[in-house]
Amino acid sequence: MAPPERIVVLAGGVGASRFLQGLVRVTDPSAVTVVSNTGDDLDFLGLRVSPDIDIVIYALAGAVNPETGWGLAGDTFHVVEALQRYGYERWFNLGDRDLATALHRTRLLREGHPLHAVVADIARAWGVPCRILPMCDERVETRVATSEGELPFQEYMVRRAAEPRVLAIRFAGIEAARPAPGVLEAIAAADAILLAPSNPFVSIGPILAVPGIRDAIAGAAAVRAAVSPIIAGQAVKGPAAAMLAALGHEVSALGVARLYRGLVDVMVIDEADAHLSPAIEALGMRCAAVPTLMTDDAAKAALARATLEAARQARRP
Amino acid sequence: MAPPERIVVLAGGVGASRFLQGLVRVTDPSAVTVVSNTGDDLDFLGLRVSPDIDIVIYALAGAVNPETGWGLAGDTFHVVEALQRYGYERWFNLGDRDLATALHRTRLLREGHPLHAVVADIARAWGVPCRILPMCDERVETRVATSEGELPFQEYMVRRAAEPRVLAIRFAGIEAARPAPGVLEAIAAADAILLAPSNPFVSIGPILAVPGIRDAIAGAAAVRAAVSPIIAGQAVKGPAAAMLAALGHEVSALGVARLYRGLVDVMVIDEADAHLSPAIEALGMRCAAVPTLMTDDAAKAALARATLEAARQARRP
Repeated sequence: MAPPERIVVLAGGVGASRFLQGLVRVTDPSAVTVVSNTGDDLDFLGLRVSPDIDIVIYALAGAVNPETGWGLAGDTFHVVEALQRYGYERWFNLGDRDLATALHRTRLLREGHPLHAVVADIARAWGVPCRILPMCDERVETRVATSEGELPFQEYMVRRAAEPRVLAIRFAGIEAARPAPGVLEAIAAADAILLAPSNPFVSIGPILAVPGIRDAIAGAAAVRAAVSPIIAGQAVKGPAAAMLAALGHEVSALGVARLYRGLVDVMVIDEADAHLSPAIEALGMRCAAVPTLMTDDAAKAALARATLEAARQARRP
Repeated sequence: MAPPERIVVLAGGVGASRFLQGLVRVTDPSAVTVVSNTGDDLDFLGLRVSPDIDIVIYALAGAVNPETGWGLAGDTFHVVEALQRYGYERWFNLGDRDLATALHRTRLLREGHPLHAVVADIARAWGVPCRILPMCDERVETRVATSEGELPFQEYMVRRAAEPRVLAIRFAGIEAARPAPGVLEAIAAADAILLAPSNPFVSIGPILAVPGIRDAIAGAAAVRAAVSPIIAGQAVKGPAAAMLAALGHEVSALGVARLYRGLVDVMVIDEADAHLSPAIEALGMRCAAVPTLMTDDAAKAALARATLEAARQARRP
């Protein structure tokens, strides 16, 4: 029996977590390493919240709120409700059980544990079958320059509902960041590197911006495949389409493919966008058009399977 | 109409909060200053919890859990339940809404606000009609030397259910503590200073140990009255009786009166202990024997009224 494919997935939040739910059903989860965006981490009342990491962990544990795609199923919001008495605006809706995770993470970080060790501990507590790594241990903050001034990502995304016009995106602290221990090793050892169907600017972007990660992926022996988060000119969730437009890119799978040009060997796009395949292949990458809308568990697994298959076919000789 | 009596109450937790619930019904609450013990404050997962202050605030707001005497009525425990996944022992049962108070307090303290300002903010948020002051802004930790070694107060009291034998009690950090702003002024201006029916060692004791407070009370123009927390040789709640015994004192209202000798003008004891009155008066203080068991709102008000009346009669000419 051949050893399992070693797979690295660059992951943002909800889209990535659904893709990963499918992936662990069609491959050996113990050979999967997730490199998670931490650029939209925030300090909420002194607690360190890592939304993307927690979404992925909760989803892989089968505990995520299936309606929202984030937070814990059945969670309550008694703490954030009670905080309103003290004058807090309730813009970031952290559930009570989710807050326990943040308390635990904050405590471990204050005790001096690096983030990757904290993430490993939380993933273990939830019985997550694959390895979850933060992109880096250092604090990096995705900041969105908008028509209303520069906002931390969650303030732009949640408090302002992604309404302000986006002018630019930067990752504060990225120069001092280093790939978390294990990230470069996983990339070097991978058979396939997958860019999950996440926002290319604020989910995949920060990961690639950590000094060393983009170069490692560009130089990796692995085949690299990206799944477009844009279907028929729309983002399934979140501000990816608005950001593509605002930042001067075509709002389509082709626009996404251009962002990943030179980095990936194959682009997986939705069958609805099959007409874009020639233009995408003209960028010097293969293109596979398959159903990408992850409407249920079967669709998630089918997308993961199709992505792995497209990667295998694109594998360089 | 005479101006309201200015009353200062030295307060611990549950017993004090019940006494205060009665007091605000029989006097002008705006003329009442509560000086609260902070010796059993704890850092719980990086959150500063002030059990005695919160008990008093919640009780005066009518929001305290009436069954336990601490915490908020109807509160849930989803955060502490969820923390068990991460290996935390659930020994300190902080409710979700109660945790919101701790988050707010911790945040304000980290921002550099002194504790007395934080307490004022929380009391205002709850609409508490009297003034609540911590005994000091500095961190003081009541530590209990026991047969199992020295324990922080809450670990002795809650985690170990007050079971280890008490050898000694000390207040770590007390030398550096100063009466919180307003404490000495309230004592100097008071018409009556009341020691609530709280544990003399770990509730009233830390307050009196803050350098300057005992002397201010001893030298105050106000009449000073203490209510015994011991009835018929038993503490109504908590380890006061066990501590009296362990530390070599008589387990009775007389034993308590001896601890307050030279400091108070009148001791309020339960009618069941009326036979102790001569011995207590022989200590150089008056003694009033009245019903002290605060079984309901009427009993709380009656005890407060009887205490004020005893204080008035003991007022020095």
